Amino acid sequence: MTIFEDELRELRVKILKLGSLVEEAIGRSIESLRERDSELAREVIDQDARINTFDVEIDEECIRLLALRQPTAGDLRFITTAMKITTDLERMGDYAVDICERALELNQEPQLKPYMDIPRMAEIAQGMLRDVLEAFLNRNPTLAYEVINRDDEVDQLTVQIFNELLLFMLKDNTTISRAIKITYISKYLERIADHATNIAEMVVYMTEGKMIRHTMPPQE
Amino acid sequence: MTIFEDELRELRVKILKLGSLVEEAIGRSIESLRERDSELAREVIDQDARINTFDVEIDEECIRLLALRQPTAGDLRFITTAMKITTDLERMGDYAVDICERALELNQEPQLKPYMDIPRMAEIAQGMLRDVLEAFLNRNPTLAYEVINRDDEVDQLTVQIFNELLLFMLKDNTTISRAIKITYISKYLERIADHATNIAEMVVYMTEGKMIRHTMPPQE
Repeated sequence: MTIFEDELRELRVKILKLGSLVEEAIGRSIESLRERDSELAREVIDQDARINTFDVEIDEECIRLLALRQPTAGDLRFITTAMKITTDLERMGDYAVDICERALELNQEPQLKPYMDIPRMAEIAQGMLRDVLEAFLNRNPTLAYEVINRDDEVDQLTVQIFNELLLFMLKDNTTISRAIKITYISKYLERIADHATNIAEMVVYMTEGKMIRHTMPPQE
Repeated sequence: MTIFEDELRELRVKILKLGSLVEEAIGRSIESLRERDSELAREVIDQDARINTFDVEIDEECIRLLALRQPTAGDLRFITTAMKITTDLERMGDYAVDICERALELNQEPQLKPYMDIPRMAEIAQGMLRDVLEAFLNRNPTLAYEVINRDDEVDQLTVQIFNELLLFMLKDNTTISRAIKITYISKYLERIADHATNIAEMVVYMTEGKMIRHTMPPQE
């Protein structure tokens, strides 16, 4: 194995590790909401700094490889895509922080009702994140397409949650402020899934040279 | 002037052009809302494809320069940052499309009320976009910091708009569905400003090697 191959392998490990940190942050943010655990929410917020530092570290490693190894063709595209993907991962981490912020607010008021399909949405989004990283690291466009297809389910759940909450608000206006915070949380999860979809589109572009895009944004 | 310098100059021109397209899309999305002009909204949605194509074109040019010119130091960082920035610009364009989608829905119902501070928010966000591109192209961290500071004003307006709309909803529950759509539009503008802030952070990192980040997400 050449030094460069070894470095690329290391890079892949680091990207996987960043992905795990983000996936964990998403899971814990939803747990802090579901279990009304404000301490956990604050922990997730504090640990976002680790994700941010790690993102910069991977970026620096990519720049170093570009400068020193002057890769071409597939390796060059892999590294430039990695630099974009870590930005997406870091922002998914930011949404986990946003969820925790709303959880902290919601935990101060009586619980509106069990949080319906929100945990399910989070599971789907986490699965999309896991699979899209696998698609990237194994240069597997088929899996990337599969991730893109799952985004529709997330969009449908967003609409469904919104409609349910709207009924609550219409019936009892003391629920409005809390209900809106819950719709925000479902929007954050939708955005997390959107980032996974963006990554999937980059993987397809990297592997097949085809540009595919969400042409229409999801309906609320 | 060397060929490479010439190519870098061309790259800068293209990034500026992409920025103008996005800025225009944002302005027109708000116009379609304010003037209840659904045809304009559909036009902006259609023209998003141009922004997407242009983003890929700039990316390809960056990859070509990395492969052929094997830049180092400042030029390498400029090009890798450019690749990230165009992704942010493209996503800002997506939010303009989101605004148009909500405008199309809102235009089908009686107008709730003049859209308060939303046009002002849009103006600030557009100004941030313009200035942050200038900061990037002129490698000017001072201007980048200035853009970052303006993000607070956008966050405050988001909270203010949310509170005003909450009063509407509490008073008259027939306004809820429309009011929530308007809060979404203010959230889209907030995200556009966040992207400008992200770019500004990258400019600071590119020019000063300092990592600065929004440590706390905005409050709703």
